[in-house]
Amino acid sequence: MELPELREEVCAANIALAAQGLAPFTWGNASGADRERGVFAIKPSGVPYEVLRPKDIVVVDIETGAVVDGAQRPSSDTPTHRRLYQAFPDVGGVAHTHSHYATVWAQTCRSIPCLGTTHADAFAGPVPVTRFLDAAEVARNYEDETGGIIAECFGAGAADPMEVPGVLVAGHAPFAWGANVQKAVEHAGILEETARMAFHTLLLNPTVAPLPEHISGKHFARKHGPDAYYGQPGG
Amino acid sequence: MELPELREEVCAANIALAAQGLAPFTWGNASGADRERGVFAIKPSGVPYEVLRPKDIVVVDIETGAVVDGAQRPSSDTPTHRRLYQAFPDVGGVAHTHSHYATVWAQTCRSIPCLGTTHADAFAGPVPVTRFLDAAEVARNYEDETGGIIAECFGAGAADPMEVPGVLVAGHAPFAWGANVQKAVEHAGILEETARMAFHTLLLNPTVAPLPEHISGKHFARKHGPDAYYGQPGG
Amino acid sequence: MELPELREEVCAANIALAAQGLAPFTWGNASGADRERGVFAIKPSGVPYEVLRPKDIVVVDIETGAVVDGAQRPSSDTPTHRRLYQAFPDVGGVAHTHSHYATVWAQTCRSIPCLGTTHADAFAGPVPVTRFLDAAEVARNYEDETGGIIAECFGAGAADPMEVPGVLVAGHAPFAWGANVQKAVEHAGILEETARMAFHTLLLNPTVAPLPEHISGKHFARKHGPDAYYGQPGG
Amino acid sequence: MELPELREEVCAANIALAAQGLAPFTWGNASGADRERGVFAIKPSGVPYEVLRPKDIVVVDIETGAVVDGAQRPSSDTPTHRRLYQAFPDVGGVAHTHSHYATVWAQTCRSIPCLGTTHADAFAGPVPVTRFLDAAEVARNYEDETGGIIAECFGAGAADPMEVPGVLVAGHAPFAWGANVQKAVEHAGILEETARMAFHTLLLNPTVAPLPEHISGKHFARKHGPDAYYGQPGG
Repeated sequence: MELPELREEVCAANIALAAQGLAPFTWGNASGADRERGVFAIKPSGVPYEVLRPKDIVVVDIETGAVVDGAQRPSSDTPTHRRLYQAFPDVGGVAHTHSHYATVWAQTCRSIPCLGTTHADAFAGPVPVTRFLDAAEVARNYEDETGGIIAECFGAGAADPMEVPGVLVAGHAPFAWGANVQKAVEHAGILEETARMAFHTLLLNPTVAPLPEHISGKHFARKHGPDAYYGQPGG
Repeated sequence: MELPELREEVCAANIALAAQGLAPFTWGNASGADRERGVFAIKPSGVPYEVLRPKDIVVVDIETGAVVDGAQRPSSDTPTHRRLYQAFPDVGGVAHTHSHYATVWAQTCRSIPCLGTTHADAFAGPVPVTRFLDAAEVARNYEDETGGIIAECFGAGAADPMEVPGVLVAGHAPFAWGANVQKAVEHAGILEETARMAFHTLLLNPTVAPLPEHISGKHFARKHGPDAYYGQPGG
Repeated sequence: MELPELREEVCAANIALAAQGLAPFTWGNASGADRERGVFAIKPSGVPYEVLRPKDIVVVDIETGAVVDGAQRPSSDTPTHRRLYQAFPDVGGVAHTHSHYATVWAQTCRSIPCLGTTHADAFAGPVPVTRFLDAAEVARNYEDETGGIIAECFGAGAADPMEVPGVLVAGHAPFAWGANVQKAVEHAGILEETARMAFHTLLLNPTVAPLPEHISGKHFARKHGPDAYYGQPGG
Repeated sequence: MELPELREEVCAANIALAAQGLAPFTWGNASGADRERGVFAIKPSGVPYEVLRPKDIVVVDIETGAVVDGAQRPSSDTPTHRRLYQAFPDVGGVAHTHSHYATVWAQTCRSIPCLGTTHADAFAGPVPVTRFLDAAEVARNYEDETGGIIAECFGAGAADPMEVPGVLVAGHAPFAWGANVQKAVEHAGILEETARMAFHTLLLNPTVAPLPEHISGKHFARKHGPDAYYGQPGG
């Protein structure tokens, strides 16, 4: 069995998605990449989280999409993960969920505006929403094209995927990512709470203004900027 | 004691309804059919889930409604279950709950529109809502007539009960079903989350459009169509 | 120590209020009456549920309000309980909570309309809301007068407290009751879920009509009427 | 290691914040003061609650802001806590959270009106919301200035911080405080439930009036006034 550590991390990350309530009814999957070997490891399709073990994880080639290790069929969303690894070279982990409030936003086809420092601490700007795929794209390769419309949201400098580590697929659900699969799961969880806060904020005040930029920028910078002073030195 | 396996499955399914929070205060019941023998097994009326055991389950004749095995009185909703087994010949299990958001939709007398792929993955179209029973129907046989107005929603090709495995009874609560009692409980749970997602989506955007059909059709087909590729082969 | 069984029931009922999430931060109390002896037993004031034991329960005379047994000061809401035992002769238990959605309704000073069978199964009509106490009543005896305005809602045949076993005190929170303290706690829990369902129903459709009376009447009767057929015979 | 008892209390209080769901993803921190020694003890920055131990707690001088004991970097919000200890001489504990509904109110920049006795029992008036910091204040010392705009809300007799033990920082999140760190955590929890109740009350009735003052005043007084009769004597 190849890549035992990566398999273990990816297995634990998928179980964490379910344990945190982000992936009810097995609606979710997480993957982690080994960039040196040009592969990523992902959950097999339709296997319940309770019985998932590292040996079930499937290893897929980023360039060709071929299964390079593993006896089972990979998640049906595998082509979306692969497309994201191709489009975002610094991403080392991807998490897809149907977490409740992030999915609600996706169903309304609205990006999530930055309404407070909780959002600003994790996302440097709104969480974007994709367009819908058209009928031809769905017919061609639904899951691969889904990755394509996600990448569109970050193209031409629209946003840096490492500073806005998540997206809403219109009518579908969120994807989140990060430097590794643990970070991808963490961002999926923060995205859910961010979506829930923005949802209730708009219910209480439908015309609320975004957080002033001199505050949102400060919050992102104190955690992630070159002079970040959150956490312990070297931690 | 007849049908020990079916009793055990039905007992476990009723306990699962409660454990998943779908049937607070014993407001719910699940049944499973043995089509060869023309019977179904159902929860006894008013017995708390904590003390429910397979021997308490009551076996009822689908054609006559007579109790054929079991010492207790069956659920007061038994005639509704029976009517569904009569109307829907491929159904092997039925679950009735008062799960929160599905009941809220039932109380508003609105069918649940398909607003996203979470819905489309499980229901091929809106989840219909019945009309109200009139006073004469209530007086005649309330529970049997309830099954009748459910069947009406699927009559004349309005929907296929195996592709839309649930319904809302106006002013009352949901029923769900499936090939067996486990599937009925699973669909009851998915119906609740679907109802909750649609509820919050409409709160955020009261005029949201349904998911485009080229996407909803794709999602149902990749899980349930002749060329389904979700899950493991033969799984 | 007098009335050891009643003390034990009342102690367990108070703990159940907290365990079911109906009384966060010790905001709640339950009492049970011994009508033959003309007393009721109630939680002491400000004692956390985790350390509450039967010996802490305080026994109070229904007619005089005097403590007849117990070393601690009774709940500050004791005069309200006492007034309800005086006004409603068939009531054997009272529960006061600050459960979330029932309190929200109380804060809006709206009675809860009967919007579905979940409500109709437990309450034969809307759950009424009191008027506000005026300044003179507050100054005179706040807790006793609170019981007085509750009783007002059921006076002159407005409603039968045994068929509508709960109320909302305007700007404050709910009280529920029943034949004994266990029933009072059960009704407090059902009132909370009923309030939550009605809340979400009105959010989805602010102009929803009440459940037709030929259906609500049927539901209350099949559980509580002279020909009730819910549950087991003699159960 | 200095101040072992205070460290233990502060450690336990931080863990309680997380256990009560008030500080998801380590978004929160609590501190406790030793007024005689002129110091306060606070959580280290970015350390997960699961591994937090009394020895990790950092002790800071109230006057100078210098770390006087502890090997780790204190919470990035330390200057805000310090400013509150300077401004409010009777405060012995401070808790900062991103609890959901209190943060939602902060994001709408609205103070929480007193809509019921649950609020009045803990806060003698609305929970105020600060103004936004301007760009110069953010650049100067963001966290210290945050304490400054909190103190502004209580200046010139606007409110007594010991009678209104919490605040919302506009666009950010709540702070709560009390006579010691345990009280600060308790008030943070009550603020969250108060915020959640007011949120749902306004959703059900956007034009609801505040609780009449003859009732809110009575409730605060019966718990906190000179003739308080809630709880046990001397308790």
